[in-house]
Amino acid sequence: MDRENNFRNDNMDEGDIEDGESLGGKVPLLVKRVNTTSQIAVVGSNVCPIESLDYEIVENELFKQDWRARTKVQILQYVLLKWALALLIGVSTGLVGFFNNIAVENIAGFKLLITSNLMANKKYFQAFAAYAGCNVCLAVIAGALCAFIAPAAAGSGIPEVKAYLNGIDAYPMLAPSTLFVKIFGSVFGVSAGFVVGKEGPMVHTGACIASLLGQGGSRKYHLTWKWLRYFKNDRDRRDLITCGAAAGVAAAFRAPVGGVLFALEEAASWWRSSLLWRTFFTTAIVAIVLRGCIEYCEDEKCGLFGQGGLIMYDVSSALVKYSGWDVLAALFLGVIGGILGSLYNFLIDKCLRFYSIINGRGPYLKVLIVMTLSFLTSCCSFGLPWIVGCIACPDNLSESCPTVGGSGNYKSFQCQPGYYNDLASLFLNTNDDAIRNLLSTSTTNEFRITSLFIFFCAVFSLGIITYGIAIPSGLFIPVILAGSCYGRLVGTLLESLSRLDSGLFALLGAAAFLGGTMRMTVSLCVILLELTNDLLLLPLVMIVLLISKTVADNFNRGVYDMIVKIKGLPFLEAYAETYMRHLVAGDVVTGPLIMFSGIEKVGTIIHALQTTSHNGFPVIDEPPLTDSAELCGIVLRSHLLVLLKGKYFSPERVLAREETMRRYALLDFAKPGSGKGIKLEDLDITDEEMDMYLDLHPITNASPYTVVETMSLAKAAILFRQLGLRHMCVVPKSQGRPPIVGILTRHDFMPEHVLGLYPHLKSRK
Amino acid sequence: MDRENNFRNDNMDEGDIEDGESLGGKVPLLVKRVNTTSQIAVVGSNVCPIESLDYEIVENELFKQDWRARTKVQILQYVLLKWALALLIGVSTGLVGFFNNIAVENIAGFKLLITSNLMANKKYFQAFAAYAGCNVCLAVIAGALCAFIAPAAAGSGIPEVKAYLNGIDAYPMLAPSTLFVKIFGSVFGVSAGFVVGKEGPMVHTGACIASLLGQGGSRKYHLTWKWLRYFKNDRDRRDLITCGAAAGVAAAFRAPVGGVLFALEEAASWWRSSLLWRTFFTTAIVAIVLRGCIEYCEDEKCGLFGQGGLIMYDVSSALVKYSGWDVLAALFLGVIGGILGSLYNFLIDKCLRFYSIINGRGPYLKVLIVMTLSFLTSCCSFGLPWIVGCIACPDNLSESCPTVGGSGNYKSFQCQPGYYNDLASLFLNTNDDAIRNLLSTSTTNEFRITSLFIFFCAVFSLGIITYGIAIPSGLFIPVILAGSCYGRLVGTLLESLSRLDSGLFALLGAAAFLGGTMRMTVSLCVILLELTNDLLLLPLVMIVLLISKTVADNFNRGVYDMIVKIKGLPFLEAYAETYMRHLVAGDVVTGPLIMFSGIEKVGTIIHALQTTSHNGFPVIDEPPLTDSAELCGIVLRSHLLVLLKGKYFSPERVLAREETMRRYALLDFAKPGSGKGIKLEDLDITDEEMDMYLDLHPITNASPYTVVETMSLAKAAILFRQLGLRHMCVVPKSQGRPPIVGILTRHDFMPEHVLGLYPHLKSRK
Repeated sequence: MDRENNFRNDNMDEGDIEDGESLGGKVPLLVKRVNTTSQIAVVGSNVCPIESLDYEIVENELFKQDWRARTKVQILQYVLLKWALALLIGVSTGLVGFFNNIAVENIAGFKLLITSNLMANKKYFQAFAAYAGCNVCLAVIAGALCAFIAPAAAGSGIPEVKAYLNGIDAYPMLAPSTLFVKIFGSVFGVSAGFVVGKEGPMVHTGACIASLLGQGGSRKYHLTWKWLRYFKNDRDRRDLITCGAAAGVAAAFRAPVGGVLFALEEAASWWRSSLLWRTFFTTAIVAIVLRGCIEYCEDEKCGLFGQGGLIMYDVSSALVKYSGWDVLAALFLGVIGGILGSLYNFLIDKCLRFYSIINGRGPYLKVLIVMTLSFLTSCCSFGLPWIVGCIACPDNLSESCPTVGGSGNYKSFQCQPGYYNDLASLFLNTNDDAIRNLLSTSTTNEFRITSLFIFFCAVFSLGIITYGIAIPSGLFIPVILAGSCYGRLVGTLLESLSRLDSGLFALLGAAAFLGGTMRMTVSLCVILLELTNDLLLLPLVMIVLLISKTVADNFNRGVYDMIVKIKGLPFLEAYAETYMRHLVAGDVVTGPLIMFSGIEKVGTIIHALQTTSHNGFPVIDEPPLTDSAELCGIVLRSHLLVLLKGKYFSPERVLAREETMRRYALLDFAKPGSGKGIKLEDLDITDEEMDMYLDLHPITNASPYTVVETMSLAKAAILFRQLGLRHMCVVPKSQGRPPIVGILTRHDFMPEHVLGLYPHLKSRK
Repeated sequence: MDRENNFRNDNMDEGDIEDGESLGGKVPLLVKRVNTTSQIAVVGSNVCPIESLDYEIVENELFKQDWRARTKVQILQYVLLKWALALLIGVSTGLVGFFNNIAVENIAGFKLLITSNLMANKKYFQAFAAYAGCNVCLAVIAGALCAFIAPAAAGSGIPEVKAYLNGIDAYPMLAPSTLFVKIFGSVFGVSAGFVVGKEGPMVHTGACIASLLGQGGSRKYHLTWKWLRYFKNDRDRRDLITCGAAAGVAAAFRAPVGGVLFALEEAASWWRSSLLWRTFFTTAIVAIVLRGCIEYCEDEKCGLFGQGGLIMYDVSSALVKYSGWDVLAALFLGVIGGILGSLYNFLIDKCLRFYSIINGRGPYLKVLIVMTLSFLTSCCSFGLPWIVGCIACPDNLSESCPTVGGSGNYKSFQCQPGYYNDLASLFLNTNDDAIRNLLSTSTTNEFRITSLFIFFCAVFSLGIITYGIAIPSGLFIPVILAGSCYGRLVGTLLESLSRLDSGLFALLGAAAFLGGTMRMTVSLCVILLELTNDLLLLPLVMIVLLISKTVADNFNRGVYDMIVKIKGLPFLEAYAETYMRHLVAGDVVTGPLIMFSGIEKVGTIIHALQTTSHNGFPVIDEPPLTDSAELCGIVLRSHLLVLLKGKYFSPERVLAREETMRRYALLDFAKPGSGKGIKLEDLDITDEEMDMYLDLHPITNASPYTVVETMSLAKAAILFRQLGLRHMCVVPKSQGRPPIVGILTRHDFMPEHVLGLYPHLKSRK
């Protein structure tokens, strides 16, 4: 929370009072602050400046010219390119997802094989050394990648993607280095046996791939593609990244429909029908790529990659037939799941705040923490199974007991032949296999209550303390792991009362936990449906999800919303806060407003760009150009920089529309890749040029969205949010005043800002 | 198309030039037309006036007072009531859906049983008489219900629901009588053997139930519920009706997730996250109710209601394993399916226009057409199977051949024992059973190519000519029927090339046809998934849907969009048309603008209400109340009528804010049920009162959304559509002019209106 308050203070410093006169412009620089850009936020484990995105179409004269000249062929090319990019995103995300799975299965499988071989020879100490050693080494690689190369790759990544799709960009969030570390960091992190998932990172990976493709590659790494310059605007990129996020979920869970719904329900802030269709196409491609890869890997072509590779928990063999009692049991499961889920969120929040202090102390400490936690996890995984004794293998099994080789339900561990250790079957497996064991049906007495309880406590705590360290760490798997263990525990306890299989109980438990932490409904439901291939359980899963979400919503917010808040990202909610109905738009306009005249002196512009970090400046036309002062529109900093760089100035205050339109094309003003573009320092303006004039009309967005100062703040907020704006003009109600009162940006709608100005409204919150 | 032009002319008549002076008000009635209300549209097969809905929160002083006084308990009650209503909608729609199924299964089953018994005794003529007689009788009941009681119940109903959710209300659309006829008309129509479905009608039924519950019952039928007065606004009703539409799909297909997605992708124009959740809850309830009912009906408790009751085509027994060739075959299927689907739409369009002429000639002719078509359908169903010969029953069947009793794959018809008639198995069955037969797997040679071809041609034509007659008729089933037949035909033809089962081909064919006509993607995919319980085919279904939609989109629009257009409903698209970028908001403002002063003479208001049908009037404050004329806000006709009825007038031009606020509560201005509310004729104003004054401030929405007249029309359209407005104020750019230029309504953004004003832009379309 400190950071958020900090950045408000930073702004205040920027708002130095300008002396309009000294600049000699005809239009005085009014002493009002407008919009500020450079806020900071924590991305991954790094602090970096954030920038708002602009989804408004800048309808300036260049745009209109370009629009008129656009041919049918160009439009078709543009549409085809969109689909081609969706295809590319689908293929690459699918391949990356598959690579991730193969790598994890092979690395972790090899590690577990060594351990179990040593255990079989009763070399317990060596086994532990090998197990913990492998884990620590893998963890250090993941941690070092993350700490030294791309700190933004730490954590789940879903909050970052969510923030981007809400209109907040922070440069390294979707950078190529982040993509690299996210892929490899996730592989090593998951292989190291941490209680983390690869699902969140896959979503982030999908978004990074989409961003990279949409920017036409990376100029830094000399990978550019000329065609893609048409995508140099925030709207198209947002669409691509939505597709990327959906593709990530689809690749992680092999759930194409679930991926689309995830993008719709959780990730995206804006949505439209055509996007639904394109997202759907992307995830269909992912599904096909994955299917192809899996078919290729049949017959053990891909090393230890087996069934477990792409999780698919088939519970359809269980008889699904439930009575009123089972529904009651599900309700109970949902209520407790909701409470535990919100507790999980609460603890994650505390833990993240603690880690954010430590992570600020440098990369070496980050790696040290990763090492420590890896060792702790190894101790838990290897030590706890000793507490419980061995159980005799059940009769009539289709699979061998104890398990031979990699994954399986019956790990021998320290037991003599014919016996197995149920806790080791959960701990000494990959997370995916542990979940499969918990969800396995028709194996009612396989896990003892004590073992389930110990495992639940361990993964619940480990999941919480692992999130926040410097490795890519998804939240889905820890939550599903804890949830399914909890569900199976309840199922085993209620065995005498309910007809449902304990594997199905485990599924409902996972649903309850997911609902309690992530607060999604439809998308989780479809993901679980696609994971388990069981439609008949659907109504029960729906009810459990709804109950647990409702219960948990009474305590705190969803885990991703919470993380967005901790990271200090100014997320705009879709609804207006209650207290906003008591205010009007004019109430929250603060700071000095800097305006330009339609034909402005170069010096004035340069000064304004130097002394503020505003991104949009209102342009005013005044007599003699018009009868009275009127708002011409808004001009963007980036467009001004392009115009200044072109140096087409005139010594007199004259219109230079035609000439400007001839010299520039719309593409010159296209938005460059995130973190790139012309900088103010790149300009080289002579003193002579400083006194010349620049006609801003051709680049002024003549149709900015405006609200009257007496408009209710709630309505203004809804307008701002629904249309995805970056700047909104506030105009005066009565005549005879300057034609603009101020500009509202994202930050002006943030609760911290509004309640900071009007603290007495806090009680109405 | 004639109708649309008609209603534009109607408006022009309404816009009689008012002589402002003669009314004696201080504010002149400017000679500019504003917003008109009474348009007409074809709803069902009836012509009726339409009204726009208003999703904006009317932030007048009464609202603010009410908002301030709102307690936490009241808010909680409101939230709980929303959920309770969702529950009620779910339960009632589920029960209605189940009743519908039981009724159809029993009536149609009984009819088919009589026919097959007579056939078995070689009484062919009697069999035909019984079959055709039953059909015609049932058809006449359905047609008479529809023609005489509720013409609005004819057709699918999905276009009407779609239009309502886009903000267009036409009174009988969701009236109780429509609900009644929709339920029973659908039962009789489907039982009569028409090639129509009960899915569209179920969606309409769900929406009607939601509307009825949301309006607090029907005052006409003395079914009111006091509590529900809190829902007397368009926003809450829209949400309820969205839930109702989703519940309808969920009940029709037993597809709860598909229902939510249908509501999201096809039905709703506005969406928000909390609605997703509530819709999901409603469909979960529907699923549970249906499950309970089906369990109750086990062991033949419900007459002839059997497996076929709630369609569920389980193809999961087929081995799903496909190679590149199969994918190619699927692509081919998709392309041809898309072409045939768009042809279907084209013919439906022609057919509907033809019927709309006949249907205008009175109810008796409507019933006659229904009779004729019913007889024609009977002739086809009974006659065509004679063309093809009998086939010997295959060996090793698990079911009996020929089929004994109701539904089954092997109808004996005219054949001798041990033989069956494959075409009769398709024709002399309910539509649901015919689809199940077509989708049945591992029955490759069951249907001959000739039979499939005849059946395809018959259902393709019958489906088209049946839609538009005066019975509730869904489009899903005809399309699925034709599509699955087409798929199976292709599957049988490609048998030597493809490894896929012909049942799976039938499924893909259904997907291709659905994609080609309805142009939905994700929701259809999930509905098919939930119908067939086969996840492994998902990627192939997705690809087929995408291809067929893409192909068909090149020819015409989706069938529902097309019907909305034929019906003359002014549907607002989510995107702005290209030519709108060449215009500004001021360009489309037409007609006389009637404004009121903040404190207005009663006579002026009455006159304005009498002579126009406008629904919103701008209110202007002028000196001495303010320094210069300024826009105070917008006042609604319905609110004016309430205030006039209250007769709190003052003889002088004075503010009467406090007194008005004391005398009225916000609820007095709540929107009454559709088609109700105070009428102008109900008012009884004396001549003396006509000269008195009324303070409009307390009921004026002081925060109307405004655009500057130079705002690009495209941007204004997006603002209008995104925020779900009914009125948008256009304000002047320069100072010193009246504070409002005009008001834009839904009709001003219609292509017909804009292109009527600027015909030269047609080429840019």
